Amino acid sequence: MLLYDMAKAPNPRRVRWFLAEKGVSLPMVQVDIMAGENLAPAFLAVNPRGVVPTLLLDDGGILDESVAICRYLEGLHPEPNLLGRDALEMARIESWQRRMEFEGMFNVAAAFRNTQPAYAERGMPGRIPPTPAIPALAERGLMLAAHWLAELDARLRDVPFVAGERFSIADITAAISVDFAKWVGLRPAPEQEALLRWQAEVKARPGARA
Amino acid sequence: MLLYDMAKAPNPRRVRWFLAEKGVSLPMVQVDIMAGENLAPAFLAVNPRGVVPTLLLDDGGILDESVAICRYLEGLHPEPNLLGRDALEMARIESWQRRMEFEGMFNVAAAFRNTQPAYAERGMPGRIPPTPAIPALAERGLMLAAHWLAELDARLRDVPFVAGERFSIADITAAISVDFAKWVGLRPAPEQEALLRWQAEVKARPGARA
Repeated sequence: MLLYDMAKAPNPRRVRWFLAEKGVSLPMVQVDIMAGENLAPAFLAVNPRGVVPTLLLDDGGILDESVAICRYLEGLHPEPNLLGRDALEMARIESWQRRMEFEGMFNVAAAFRNTQPAYAERGMPGRIPPTPAIPALAERGLMLAAHWLAELDARLRDVPFVAGERFSIADITAAISVDFAKWVGLRPAPEQEALLRWQAEVKARPGARA
Repeated sequence: MLLYDMAKAPNPRRVRWFLAEKGVSLPMVQVDIMAGENLAPAFLAVNPRGVVPTLLLDDGGILDESVAICRYLEGLHPEPNLLGRDALEMARIESWQRRMEFEGMFNVAAAFRNTQPAYAERGMPGRIPPTPAIPALAERGLMLAAHWLAELDARLRDVPFVAGERFSIADITAAISVDFAKWVGLRPAPEQEALLRWQAEVKARPGARA
């Protein structure tokens, strides 16, 4: 297998962190999204959709959604478990993973992407028709991302980790989204003590540096 | 278990269709999102997040993300399988499910939500700060949803179902998103024959009427 990666981007980092938790390493190739390498012919020959991360499988097939790549890796390397052990835990973790993605990462991405000159005509990821940036969407993303940080702080006053009692993929998505939020000038406030406690704890994991 | 549902809305329909494929029925309560019942105290006491569908579990807990609810139901009722049988198939189905959601449903929802007077200050679902509609986002959603229909047609020229050889949750999300697109005036074109062939096939399933 071969992982097409971009070291600085938040989505590929989700897969790298997941791999690090599993103690697995994969060969990687860097693709510079901001420079548009993901839309150049060489990469489109690998993945016509033009998104990173992309996992090239040994049979020549690809997987190119971060969470789907993680689910495949969980199947190959079940321990430590990061997606849940029984039906209810799997559902709870998936629910929190999705919330961190939609309320956190997507809002931060909207705030970032709609203000960057490099993305002036690439309002969404991958190979799509010209999609102009929407300044009002950047504003909305910033407002909702700030709201998400406050809600996450409230959640982490009740439980040690995002999905409950133990570390899961929901923490990976959340922690990367909190880091990503710095790119748009948003940081946990000093009074968000539960969020800061959790952030320090998850950032101390080796996977955080993957 | 008790399912909080809204008969006309696309997200709750995903869960109802999934249940119908499994041959399972659950008691349901209707919540009128457009009238704001999801944000009224009675429903916020059930789910402070204010989103539908919400599955109330027998232990008093809730699940409130459609795909997470489906994953729980798959665990309880494994047949017929709709989420994949092995690691690779699970990942492929999840990948296609996510694409149908992000490229289809989310774009249609943006086109719909940002043009409805009922949602003038509720640009996103659930209990969040006032979030004004963004007309440019409705336009973008419409453009990208049309692009998605064309891509889906191309995909269905190669394979019978969205994720490949058999019906899965990815078809449920896709079919409901295609129906939802009618709300914003978008329909498969007569020349999108593969899309129309697939649509006729999935709409003939009993779950389509759930």
